[in-house]
Amino acid sequence: MTDISAAMAETARMIDGGLDRLLPRPGGRAEDMLFAAMRYAVMAGGKRFRPMLTLACAKLFDVSHDQVLRVAAAIELVHCYSLIHDDLPAMDDDDLRRGQPSCHAKFGEATAILAGDALMTLAFEVLAAPETHSDGALRCALITGLARAAGAEGMVAGQMIDLAAEGKTHGTGARDAAEVARMERLKTGGLIAFACESVAILGRAPADARQALVGYAHALGLAYQVVDDLLDAEGEAGMIGKTAGKDARAGKATFVAMLGLEGARAEAARLAIEAGHNLDFFGKKADFLRDMTGFVIDRHR
Amino acid sequence: MTDISAAMAETARMIDGGLDRLLPRPGGRAEDMLFAAMRYAVMAGGKRFRPMLTLACAKLFDVSHDQVLRVAAAIELVHCYSLIHDDLPAMDDDDLRRGQPSCHAKFGEATAILAGDALMTLAFEVLAAPETHSDGALRCALITGLARAAGAEGMVAGQMIDLAAEGKTHGTGARDAAEVARMERLKTGGLIAFACESVAILGRAPADARQALVGYAHALGLAYQVVDDLLDAEGEAGMIGKTAGKDARAGKATFVAMLGLEGARAEAARLAIEAGHNLDFFGKKADFLRDMTGFVIDRHR
Repeated sequence: MTDISAAMAETARMIDGGLDRLLPRPGGRAEDMLFAAMRYAVMAGGKRFRPMLTLACAKLFDVSHDQVLRVAAAIELVHCYSLIHDDLPAMDDDDLRRGQPSCHAKFGEATAILAGDALMTLAFEVLAAPETHSDGALRCALITGLARAAGAEGMVAGQMIDLAAEGKTHGTGARDAAEVARMERLKTGGLIAFACESVAILGRAPADARQALVGYAHALGLAYQVVDDLLDAEGEAGMIGKTAGKDARAGKATFVAMLGLEGARAEAARLAIEAGHNLDFFGKKADFLRDMTGFVIDRHR
Repeated sequence: MTDISAAMAETARMIDGGLDRLLPRPGGRAEDMLFAAMRYAVMAGGKRFRPMLTLACAKLFDVSHDQVLRVAAAIELVHCYSLIHDDLPAMDDDDLRRGQPSCHAKFGEATAILAGDALMTLAFEVLAAPETHSDGALRCALITGLARAAGAEGMVAGQMIDLAAEGKTHGTGARDAAEVARMERLKTGGLIAFACESVAILGRAPADARQALVGYAHALGLAYQVVDDLLDAEGEAGMIGKTAGKDARAGKATFVAMLGLEGARAEAARLAIEAGHNLDFFGKKADFLRDMTGFVIDRHR
């Protein structure tokens, strides 16, 4: 195991611990199965990419570990809710997630919809609690940032556009690489950017530091998605834990569909360089973030 | 038109105006249909019972009208999201809502799921904004209250138990009047209670006033549900704007099923008296709330 993958595995364990403490536990009540479905969807593993980023960004600022871990967990809860809803038959219709039955395949559609709803609600409850920070206005800034990244002008809008290509929502899907980039920025980029920016909010970072971090995160987020598209086009189900080649069969607008394999590979490399330039602002403090960037881009090799 | 129904109609207009200002507007973007679905679900009318309660409670405390209206709107956004998701085929499977096609019947399932998600997110964004109150910690107290009422230990848990009776979720449905009362307290009572309690939070009311208000709201919330069950059992689709007799056909656990028609009527009357006793604390200031209570209970006559 390389240094970076060992460090990431250790960080993932911390994140899992944080999530485990926040999730409700089944305990002999009529609604136990809801709690079980929430836990199943969240604790089934996954790369923990967003909370990992949050913890990596914490090395740049003077912030409390426990507070960062709560923010990281809230972001992962929103990500997990979005995966549950995205997998539903009416949406991406995927019975497989991380190599296991997806939440609705295991618990039924109604429970899966409700588990997603409850996870999103929990994310905001976690951020609003005094344990997240002593300053209520700062907690509200975190809530505002998360809501904007996740809501109608962020992640949900991106998913709406993504599904249009399959005819599952009305309206226009993405028709060229620029529109795919906008869709991905909405669908995944905003939450990835907030995974970084939230630490700048917690650390009351000056505007230039915050801007550099957001610039890094936007480039990284797009790179991450380009690599995801490459993995889907090239990968096998066992390696990526979901059904491979699905995007192409569904007629999805992806970077690979728009740019071709070679074009997508070049775009990922370009974005990695752009991400790196933004980290120059932080000097050596950002070494762990640099390593993570490399790790993300290298996933498809 | 009686005084109370005229006052309620005027209040409903204020609430509609507040909601209209908060909802995103379609404007030539690929995700326009999402905004259209959100507006459709929220602006289709409805009784506005929860925000009406919030505005009625505002008469008890020294609070800003604009701030109360924002809180009331946030609560209604959560209510509307829950109706969209509850109507889905995997849940209550209802194509009719307030006499019109429900959100998924009009926009498709995927868009309806996403519109619900976006409305919930917007509710928290509204509460987190400085316009809601200058004190960030107070805004967080509102967010905590709304999240608890709506989430895994509140509304979502209640819906989970409600659907168990139909075999749509695993676990146990309600088997007697006490379990129906617990389910309804979770499913609708918590949000109704928060519609009142939120004003006590905004007004920094002393603990005894807050307690009296919550006591009132819990009794009123249950009374409201008993009347709803009576309307479903007795009513016609045109009068209540949804498919009548549906609960019984679906094998739902309702107060009417547990107590019979006469028993349910007696329970509604008892709860109305209990609600009224809690309002004694506020003296004449609570007259509008008293009138509203009577109005709610009288709906089924």
